[in-house]
Amino acid sequence: MCILQTIHGPADLRVLSQADLVQLADEIRSVLIDTVRRTGGHLGPNLGVVELTLALHRVFDSPTDPIIWDTGHQTYVHKLLTGRHSEFDRLRQRGGISGYPSQSESEHDFVENSHASTALSYADGLAKAFDIRKESTRTAVAVLGDGALTGGMCWEALNNIGAEPNRPVVIVLNDNARSYAPTVGAVAEHLARLRMRRANDSRTTSDESLFERIGLHYLGPVDGHDIAAMERTLRQARDLRRPVVVHCVTRKGKGYAPAEENEADRLHAVGPNAPAFAPSGGGKKQTWTDAFGEEIARLADERADLVAVTAAMLRPVGLSRFSRNYPERVFDVGMAEQHAVTSAAGLAMGGLHPVVAIYSTFFNRAFDQALLDVALHRLPVTFVLDRAGVTGEDGPSHHGMWDLSILHNVPGIRVAAPRDADTLRAELREAVEYQGGPTVLRFPKATVGPDIPAVSTIGTLDMLVSGKQSDVLIVSVGAMAEDCVTAAAQLASHHIGVTVVDPRWVLPVNPLLAELAAAHRLVVTVEDNNRAGGFGTALAQLLHDRGVHTPVCALGIPPAFLAAGKRKELLAGAELSADLLARRIQREMAERLVPGGLLPRQQQLAGKRIAEVRA
Amino acid sequence: MCILQTIHGPADLRVLSQADLVQLADEIRSVLIDTVRRTGGHLGPNLGVVELTLALHRVFDSPTDPIIWDTGHQTYVHKLLTGRHSEFDRLRQRGGISGYPSQSESEHDFVENSHASTALSYADGLAKAFDIRKESTRTAVAVLGDGALTGGMCWEALNNIGAEPNRPVVIVLNDNARSYAPTVGAVAEHLARLRMRRANDSRTTSDESLFERIGLHYLGPVDGHDIAAMERTLRQARDLRRPVVVHCVTRKGKGYAPAEENEADRLHAVGPNAPAFAPSGGGKKQTWTDAFGEEIARLADERADLVAVTAAMLRPVGLSRFSRNYPERVFDVGMAEQHAVTSAAGLAMGGLHPVVAIYSTFFNRAFDQALLDVALHRLPVTFVLDRAGVTGEDGPSHHGMWDLSILHNVPGIRVAAPRDADTLRAELREAVEYQGGPTVLRFPKATVGPDIPAVSTIGTLDMLVSGKQSDVLIVSVGAMAEDCVTAAAQLASHHIGVTVVDPRWVLPVNPLLAELAAAHRLVVTVEDNNRAGGFGTALAQLLHDRGVHTPVCALGIPPAFLAAGKRKELLAGAELSADLLARRIQREMAERLVPGGLLPRQQQLAGKRIAEVRA
Repeated sequence: MCILQTIHGPADLRVLSQADLVQLADEIRSVLIDTVRRTGGHLGPNLGVVELTLALHRVFDSPTDPIIWDTGHQTYVHKLLTGRHSEFDRLRQRGGISGYPSQSESEHDFVENSHASTALSYADGLAKAFDIRKESTRTAVAVLGDGALTGGMCWEALNNIGAEPNRPVVIVLNDNARSYAPTVGAVAEHLARLRMRRANDSRTTSDESLFERIGLHYLGPVDGHDIAAMERTLRQARDLRRPVVVHCVTRKGKGYAPAEENEADRLHAVGPNAPAFAPSGGGKKQTWTDAFGEEIARLADERADLVAVTAAMLRPVGLSRFSRNYPERVFDVGMAEQHAVTSAAGLAMGGLHPVVAIYSTFFNRAFDQALLDVALHRLPVTFVLDRAGVTGEDGPSHHGMWDLSILHNVPGIRVAAPRDADTLRAELREAVEYQGGPTVLRFPKATVGPDIPAVSTIGTLDMLVSGKQSDVLIVSVGAMAEDCVTAAAQLASHHIGVTVVDPRWVLPVNPLLAELAAAHRLVVTVEDNNRAGGFGTALAQLLHDRGVHTPVCALGIPPAFLAAGKRKELLAGAELSADLLARRIQREMAERLVPGGLLPRQQQLAGKRIAEVRA
Repeated sequence: MCILQTIHGPADLRVLSQADLVQLADEIRSVLIDTVRRTGGHLGPNLGVVELTLALHRVFDSPTDPIIWDTGHQTYVHKLLTGRHSEFDRLRQRGGISGYPSQSESEHDFVENSHASTALSYADGLAKAFDIRKESTRTAVAVLGDGALTGGMCWEALNNIGAEPNRPVVIVLNDNARSYAPTVGAVAEHLARLRMRRANDSRTTSDESLFERIGLHYLGPVDGHDIAAMERTLRQARDLRRPVVVHCVTRKGKGYAPAEENEADRLHAVGPNAPAFAPSGGGKKQTWTDAFGEEIARLADERADLVAVTAAMLRPVGLSRFSRNYPERVFDVGMAEQHAVTSAAGLAMGGLHPVVAIYSTFFNRAFDQALLDVALHRLPVTFVLDRAGVTGEDGPSHHGMWDLSILHNVPGIRVAAPRDADTLRAELREAVEYQGGPTVLRFPKATVGPDIPAVSTIGTLDMLVSGKQSDVLIVSVGAMAEDCVTAAAQLASHHIGVTVVDPRWVLPVNPLLAELAAAHRLVVTVEDNNRAGGFGTALAQLLHDRGVHTPVCALGIPPAFLAAGKRKELLAGAELSADLLARRIQREMAERLVPGGLLPRQQQLAGKRIAEVRA
């Protein structure tokens, strides 16, 4: 590590010889492999951008020239070169270095959001600002993967960037022919042709890239692992003072055989303490995703009209088996959530039943399409939102904590949150059988616990704990059931009677919950979602509308951006653990329930109303 | 009308001669002009697609071949040709023909959503379904304007469509070089070059369109007003059995001089009973948009760092004057809401204060970007959401009834809803002065009423009606204030004391409202937004969290898709009028307030808590 230790900022790079740089690249790769083996993290992408990052920081003057990294999971090298080498051993640890850019860590980090295809838009805005403020020597640089070009936002940005020949933006296209998995689509095929033809040195006018068609200068392809060539090309790009695409060809996982040889994902992301670097999620315990993947494959056998759509995440969302068995019925549309949803609307119009399997956090991108393309037309599309709730180490923009709140807005949509593998299978079947409109299943990124059988049912509600003399009604959403049941047992030992109900279908709120609520002195809702606008507020509104006055204590994730951390710890931070839940309920009961106080009268009132509702 | 009267469906078109078709086109234009003059509606776009629609319905076999119209406001001709001529005089009237495709009107109508750039995604889904179901003779047809190509969704779809050479999709690109106004961006410039070069008949390989770069066959350009040429080209496209773009050149407003000569918008949309066809919104009374447009122009004079972003709606959102005075500081990014928002994030990172002026309904498209690109980074970006709430005649997908509910989800965002022109100006100033993060203003599509002065203020709350012995607290959101104040006066004559407060900044909820609520027996929130997840639920949650037990009656738009109609009528349908509001409050009071009943105790309890909160 003798050279890396001398690098305290980008300026220190500029005195190095090409030989030094090659050695530095080796040192960086060692640090990456050693650290990520221990901490877990994004290995393949960072191994692929070692030389590219070195060249960028030698040519551009960060942060005067802002370098915007699309998705941000490929910034480990950038971090090592911008003064964070000594802290790098605490990558992705609590209080340590983030796995993504972080404004609080460094002035060299701009964008903390790790959703894809945004970098060009930031760069366009920055370039416009430099123009207006007459900061004519600054250059906005965007680094994006070829996969990002499958997202529509990039094209909105290119349409704007390409129309201004005098406004410099340097677009570094890190073409490794992969998103998570190999990049799909016609643009990827075009990039492949550009790589081939240029390599064959048979350039003709018909080779012109599509970038040149829309006003961008094109440089490349250049070997992204050749530092000198990269520097030359980046200097040329910088000095053109116009919008330019630098097409760099890199190899994800470069320099580390176990990554380069892993055709599935080139060790895109790995878990911590992995001696043999198994892909993350490859443990032995069954995850929610595994349970979904098995059941959807079974359903695919049973129903020829069942099809699936993924947005560049075939394996991570559990569609591998379905896709292996029926490749023609599973569509990877690229990192293109909007298209995923509206093409599913088309599939449904065409007489099929599509299942759109997507991470909860990425569903944000398709709210408008779910609302107006699917729900307005009452189309039978099933959304399966994996990684719902607290996800863990990937930081604020990966937590799936918004879905219930935005789905709450979508008229007619039916949302289920399974509590265990058994209900996941049952609710998935109910979802794909429903023909009246869209349905949603949400579940977390976690191993799935033991099945939690219902002790009884009321209508379609599953009663998990059913006390005779019950003061408190806990309405549990999905995977929160285990903690709710444990909390109920703890409270029983404190002589607080608790009923725990799993509504199974959480939205629209089941009116039977109003009847149950009326028979209790306190309702507590427990959801792994932003409590603002979530299930709790929906239930509270139903109770009000039905004249039921039982107070609703809505527990969930506070309305703030949640840092990275372990799922259990983060949940506990929001009182979403059995112990804290029990303690909170004890406190609520002690504070509210003045003996002979207001609640008995409320119950009377409520009881009367409920009778009317039933009549 | 002698030919049009014989057309009861597309089949009737196929027996006509070319001469008949030319006469039919004339008849259709007469009907369009006569009807829209009376009813209002989209005139220019429909005049531009008369021949194109005739050709489509002669070549394709709708609905076996589904024709998907992007945005749908150009389907008047389609309606006249698919059995709706006799009802066409009731265009856009209550109970009459919709101004957009409507599944309940006709089996020829598929997509009711009028947001742009979706047609290709539906068509991709339909084509996949035909493939799987082995319906190999069916063809999915998408008709979209050149403006739609400024929206990223189109590129997500093209990336998928172009990658499947054996899956037929016919893309009819209706290139009139305009969205609402002239289309912006590098793709539009490319289309212009294609039009020019092909017209000059100097085709070389370098003429190859960008569509051909990404796997699509390209036919054209073809004169979209030449029925025979259009038919020939569409037949060729249909018979290729592969993805193909038919580039049709049309003139918006074609055949009607007042439209063709209107450079501003070619009479894109006109109001009803307009003898001289003034563009809609061109009346004499000041609209909310006008008030915004004047103030933002004044602010632009005062602050050189103020810039504005519009998504292809410069004039409709009131940015004309700003843009005339400072053209280099106003950016039209095309129909690209995602890019509008994230490029604004870039502008703010670059040291400017961007104002993103956008229709409320289109803000849905940029929820993820507002959340993770702007709010996560606490960037000072101001969103101005015009057409918030009930908008009127443009149907379910144009009502701006979702914004408060989705904004409720965005940590740290500050949302104001001005009640009159005076508060609009003041709150806009407060918004652009705030440096701590994003701000939002929302206001409706309507003329702005008289100013409603505050009788007093509590902190930043404006008290509009302040009763001494007040039972009811009405919390009024934005433009609802006028009706709330009138309702309070009506209730006073029934001896119900009412306080009306305008919180001005509605999100995050001002904690002072909890104190006010604690001093009342009933809180009524009134918002021109989906009541699910809206301001009312946010206030109710705050009250619960603060231990205030006063019940919250949350009035707003029911969580359902709202049909087209007059703003006043639709609002009244949701009890959002002074009379119905007063009646509802009377009823709530009569039902709830049992003498000596529960509320006095609640107030005591609440009072204690509030004292704690204050301490």
